[in-house]
Amino acid sequence: MTREELSRNIFRKRSFLCTGLDTDIERLPVSLDRDIRGMVNFNTDIIRCTADLSVAYKINTAFYEQYGARGWEAMAETLDLIPGDCLAIADAKRGDIGNTSSMYARAFFDELRFDAITVAPYMGEDSLRPFLEFEDKWVICLALTSNPGSADFQMLESQGKRLYEHVIETVCRWGNPNNLMFVTGATQAAHLEHIRTIIPEHFLLVPGVGAQGGDLHEVAGAALNDSGGLLVNASRSILYASRDEDYTEAARAEAMRLQREMDIALRQEGY
Amino acid sequence: MTREELSRNIFRKRSFLCTGLDTDIERLPVSLDRDIRGMVNFNTDIIRCTADLSVAYKINTAFYEQYGARGWEAMAETLDLIPGDCLAIADAKRGDIGNTSSMYARAFFDELRFDAITVAPYMGEDSLRPFLEFEDKWVICLALTSNPGSADFQMLESQGKRLYEHVIETVCRWGNPNNLMFVTGATQAAHLEHIRTIIPEHFLLVPGVGAQGGDLHEVAGAALNDSGGLLVNASRSILYASRDEDYTEAARAEAMRLQREMDIALRQEGY
Repeated sequence: MTREELSRNIFRKRSFLCTGLDTDIERLPVSLDRDIRGMVNFNTDIIRCTADLSVAYKINTAFYEQYGARGWEAMAETLDLIPGDCLAIADAKRGDIGNTSSMYARAFFDELRFDAITVAPYMGEDSLRPFLEFEDKWVICLALTSNPGSADFQMLESQGKRLYEHVIETVCRWGNPNNLMFVTGATQAAHLEHIRTIIPEHFLLVPGVGAQGGDLHEVAGAALNDSGGLLVNASRSILYASRDEDYTEAARAEAMRLQREMDIALRQEGY
Repeated sequence: MTREELSRNIFRKRSFLCTGLDTDIERLPVSLDRDIRGMVNFNTDIIRCTADLSVAYKINTAFYEQYGARGWEAMAETLDLIPGDCLAIADAKRGDIGNTSSMYARAFFDELRFDAITVAPYMGEDSLRPFLEFEDKWVICLALTSNPGSADFQMLESQGKRLYEHVIETVCRWGNPNNLMFVTGATQAAHLEHIRTIIPEHFLLVPGVGAQGGDLHEVAGAALNDSGGLLVNASRSILYASRDEDYTEAARAEAMRLQREMDIALRQEGY
C-alpha cells in the first residue's frame, strides 16, 4: 500500500486507528474454544466488526509464534482476513545482519505478504536495508517505545541528542516518507512534538493509547500532518472489551469510540 | 544447561565451537533435495558429523521462518536432533514490551525447548526480564555485533562510554553469569579485551570468525576465562565446506580444524 492510499483511507474513514491483533487464547470470549481455531474465529469476528473503523491491523507475531507451526498458520489465516483498504503490519521487531534480515524480509513480505514490518535498529544500516528494498512495503523502525524500559537506552544522551533522536535522524537517511515509519509511544507525548520537528512528513505508529495510559488528543495534536501521518494502535481495549456473547458489539463500540475521537481530532487540527 | 555443565563440556571436548545452522536451501549439496525435507536431512548430517567437536548449536530462526509453518516444523525437528551435551541456541534477536517478551520466552523455552535465545536490548529492562525468569535457560544479549552496521548506534558515546558498554553494564544488573551471555563480534577483537574487564565472568558468544573475517586466536586470547567463558560461532565455513558428495567429510574437516585451533588456544591460555 502506498502512502497516498494510506492517506486517502485515513481521510475517507475519518480514522487513524490501527487495531492490534494481540490475540491471547486465555482471554478469548467464553463462547469460543480456547485453542488456535478459537483464536482465528475470534480474529475473524474482530476484523469483521472493526474493518470500516480501522485503517490498519497490526499482528503481534509473538502471540502466534508461541504455538509453533500451528501458530504460523493461524497468523497466515488472520493476515488473509485483513481487507485490502487496511495496512497489514507484522509487529515482529526484527533486525539482524544483512543476509539474515533479507530472510526475514522475504518471510514477511513475500511468504506472508504483509504490507509493513516493525524492526529494531540496534544492529544498524545493513540490518534494515533489506527490508527497505521491497517496493510498496513499509519498514516501521522502533524509535521511542511506550514501555518502562524505553528509558534504559533510548534516552541516553550522546552529542547533545538522545539515542532515539540519533536513530530517527540516521535511519531517515536509508529510507524516505514513502517506505519508512517510526514507532513512538503515546506515553511519550512530551517527545512527540519534538519528533515531529525532526521528521515532519513520516508516518508515526503510536502504541500505548488505552491500556498503557497514553492520551489520544495529545498524540493527535502533536503528530497529525497533512497526509494523516499517524497510526494509533489499540489492542487490548478493543479485543477484550467484553468476554461475553456481546464481544463483537463491545469491540465495535470501543473501536467506534476511538474513531469518533479521531474524527474530532482530525477536525480540530483542520483536516 | 547450567554454566558448570557448559564449562565441563568445553574442557572435555577441548572446544568452544558453536556450529551455526544457518541452513540455506539454495546452498544445499547437489545430492540433496532443494526443499524443507532436504534442509532437515542436511541438518541431520551436519549435526551428526560435528557433534563431538561442538559444544553448542545455534539455529538462526530467520532461515526457517521464511518458510512459514513448514519452516517452524523444520526448526523444531532440527532442535530435537541437537545432542544433550550441546547448548541449543535460538538466534532470534527478540525484544518487545514485557507481556510480548513473555510470549516469546514461552515460544522458545517451553514450546521449542531451546536452552538459550539471543535478544535485542533496545527496549530495555521489561523487554529482557521475562526471558531471565526461566530456570536453567540463557539470555544472550546483543552488545557489540560483528556486522558493518554495528558502528551506527552501538559505538555512540554517552557519558564517556559507548552504547554497547552501557548495554553490558546495565543488562548485567538484571541477570548474572549463570543466565546471561553477550554477543560480541569477532571483527571487534580490539574491544573484546576491554569487554572482559567489564565482565570477567560472563560467557561471550562470538560470531564473525571465518566468513566475516575475525581471528580465532585473537578472540580466544582476549576472551577465554577459567570456565571457558567463550563460544565462537562458525556457520557458513562449516555448512558449505563442500557442495559435493563429500559434504559431511568437508564439514567435519572444517569443524575439526577449528576445534584443534581451539585446543591450542586453550593450552596457550593455560587451560
